[in-house]
Amino acid sequence: MIAEKMKPLMANNSAVRQMFEEGNRLRAQYGKENVFDFSIGNPDAPVPDEINQAIKDIVDETPVMELHGYMSNAGYEDVRETIAQNINKLHGTEFNAGNILMTVGAASALNVALKTILDPGEEVVIFAPYFLEYNWYVKNYDGVVVPCQTDENFMPNMERLAECITEKTRAVLINTPHNPTGVIYPEEIIEGIAKVLEEKQKEYNRTIFLISDEPYRELAYDGIEVPYVTKYYNNTFVVYSYSKSLSLPGERIGYLVVPPDMEDSEFVFETATAVNRISGAVNAPSIQQKLVAKCIDSKVNLEYYDRNRKTLYNGLKECGFECVMPQGAFYLFVKSPVDDAAEFCAAAKKYNILMVNGASFMAPGYVRLAYCVSHETIENSMPAFKKLAEEYGF
Amino acid sequence: MIAEKMKPLMANNSAVRQMFEEGNRLRAQYGKENVFDFSIGNPDAPVPDEINQAIKDIVDETPVMELHGYMSNAGYEDVRETIAQNINKLHGTEFNAGNILMTVGAASALNVALKTILDPGEEVVIFAPYFLEYNWYVKNYDGVVVPCQTDENFMPNMERLAECITEKTRAVLINTPHNPTGVIYPEEIIEGIAKVLEEKQKEYNRTIFLISDEPYRELAYDGIEVPYVTKYYNNTFVVYSYSKSLSLPGERIGYLVVPPDMEDSEFVFETATAVNRISGAVNAPSIQQKLVAKCIDSKVNLEYYDRNRKTLYNGLKECGFECVMPQGAFYLFVKSPVDDAAEFCAAAKKYNILMVNGASFMAPGYVRLAYCVSHETIENSMPAFKKLAEEYGF
Repeated sequence: MIAEKMKPLMANNSAVRQMFEEGNRLRAQYGKENVFDFSIGNPDAPVPDEINQAIKDIVDETPVMELHGYMSNAGYEDVRETIAQNINKLHGTEFNAGNILMTVGAASALNVALKTILDPGEEVVIFAPYFLEYNWYVKNYDGVVVPCQTDENFMPNMERLAECITEKTRAVLINTPHNPTGVIYPEEIIEGIAKVLEEKQKEYNRTIFLISDEPYRELAYDGIEVPYVTKYYNNTFVVYSYSKSLSLPGERIGYLVVPPDMEDSEFVFETATAVNRISGAVNAPSIQQKLVAKCIDSKVNLEYYDRNRKTLYNGLKECGFECVMPQGAFYLFVKSPVDDAAEFCAAAKKYNILMVNGASFMAPGYVRLAYCVSHETIENSMPAFKKLAEEYGF
Repeated sequence: MIAEKMKPLMANNSAVRQMFEEGNRLRAQYGKENVFDFSIGNPDAPVPDEINQAIKDIVDETPVMELHGYMSNAGYEDVRETIAQNINKLHGTEFNAGNILMTVGAASALNVALKTILDPGEEVVIFAPYFLEYNWYVKNYDGVVVPCQTDENFMPNMERLAECITEKTRAVLINTPHNPTGVIYPEEIIEGIAKVLEEKQKEYNRTIFLISDEPYRELAYDGIEVPYVTKYYNNTFVVYSYSKSLSLPGERIGYLVVPPDMEDSEFVFETATAVNRISGAVNAPSIQQKLVAKCIDSKVNLEYYDRNRKTLYNGLKECGFECVMPQGAFYLFVKSPVDDAAEFCAAAKKYNILMVNGASFMAPGYVRLAYCVSHETIENSMPAFKKLAEEYGF
């Protein structure tokens, strides 16, 4: 009944559903408070207080046909200008409304960018481990994902990047702060990637885009800077979402940046806008556009996740587990004490701890813990982690 | 810079933009009130009064993390159940939440349905004239559009439909009430289509879907019934939008119906839900979902468009133009008095009348007038139409 092309999607889908159902089964059996579910990356820091009032103000202040009616497929001009000026203020860029395409969240922005540039058979290099949903996004346009293994510390390796780029490469996709590892690429890494791409563009005499997926940009701890990638490489798309920065994942609002320094910037922007239309989104939802502009300086309380990060990291280290302190996002990547991380996940489940096998991110031998949960859950999980550690003789 | 595959999109796009810019040029030169722009199908009947209050109530009543957070990719269960029960009440169907997939408007629902079922090279039969954006939706999944010419009265011809269906046909797409002609398919037409499809399914021993695109369902005049298509043919997807029924086109909210009688209904629904996720939408925007459920019985004032319909139709007939009284939607399809409708459009522009060449809908020799404009615009345009008619000796 369904397209042959979609059959692999459904095979994968049932694995995700099984894990979700397993969580529900455990909660029903042991009680919600006795299950430590670190499997789902669902933002749970409180929505900033001003958001709901802003929605009501927008409804009161905006002429009704303007609020709910069609606008340019790229979004409201004033919203886009507000966002552009805010990025300029924070990052010293020189954007205007013509560089900001409002989208139905980051996933949509990423799809729009890929459809705009990708012809069948062209390659997209992605640093592994990575969020496997990227595979689907690239396949949507018959592109080919080329995974590029990072170093032990999960940072890109420039020699391997150079090897991964061929005459078929159309884009390199980065994600920083990073899901699932929590690393943030420092300036020298971004400079290194830019250098390789500049060289490869010359070598193959063709445009290679850098796509920077930044839904976790605002979740950077200890004051660490997240470099603004367009300043290092002209042909960069930035993909942004308010799902994490404002805890609004259900509202589906984000944007795609087509910077002025990109080759043929205006034409690429116009194409991406048309792609946004024909792909079905047409435009980003209108109330949400007005909302993010009105709340341009709002952020969720970073402390909410930071406290979880520290408690979970310190707790696991004390138990004897091996992990790297995450610098951003809300994931802790933990080395499995046995080669087969599936075995480790199964052992954890005995103590009602749910985590995701790193194989789901092209990182066998690791597990991902999403610490976007209540602080209580983390504290309550510690005895369970201790018992789990004892199984491995820690 | 952009994908080869997207280049034809941009050629087409610049034609649409030219027309839009021409409208702006005329408005700047002659004043807004002296330009009669019938070129854009942008719903302008007032948003029902209760909509804005409902948004504020939703914000006040809904727990904040539920309102803005992730839900199932198919949408909120309670919203989907409310919509299902409403359809059941109106049309005698037996749907539940498991048959309703909330989407980012009808364009997104249509794309989700097509991606769910279409493999490269498979054919989608569409009755001509038709909304040409369908071409892009089908091309998004490397499908092939097979136009099927309707009769003089723009009703499907069953013999020609049977001829258009081959062993490669995956779907037939209908749109009723219809853009651009304003016709509504009566029950016997739907029965006729169902009969042909049943026969062809047997002949080719494969599933052929009927996709019913119904954004104009609520805009049916003179009490004309719009048959509910799933009752006539099991393998029917219904595509619905609130853009016209509530004048909310900017909010991007609609749904896809996967009826319980469709073969493998549950699996198709599950696949469509996964497709909704990987295509970038992830889920329909959350406030808008809650909104359409809360305002389930709301409708724009049909009288707003009906008055325009009658004034424009009667006025043009009096001038001597040939057109069919539209039964639904907000378009009047007018026969060009000369073979080349482009010439007719150019002549109209001399009197500041903007209309769309029927060639843009695979209907050469016709023009489309969108009467979703103020009633004043229609009244004020009449002297201009009279002068235009005189050019043709009416």
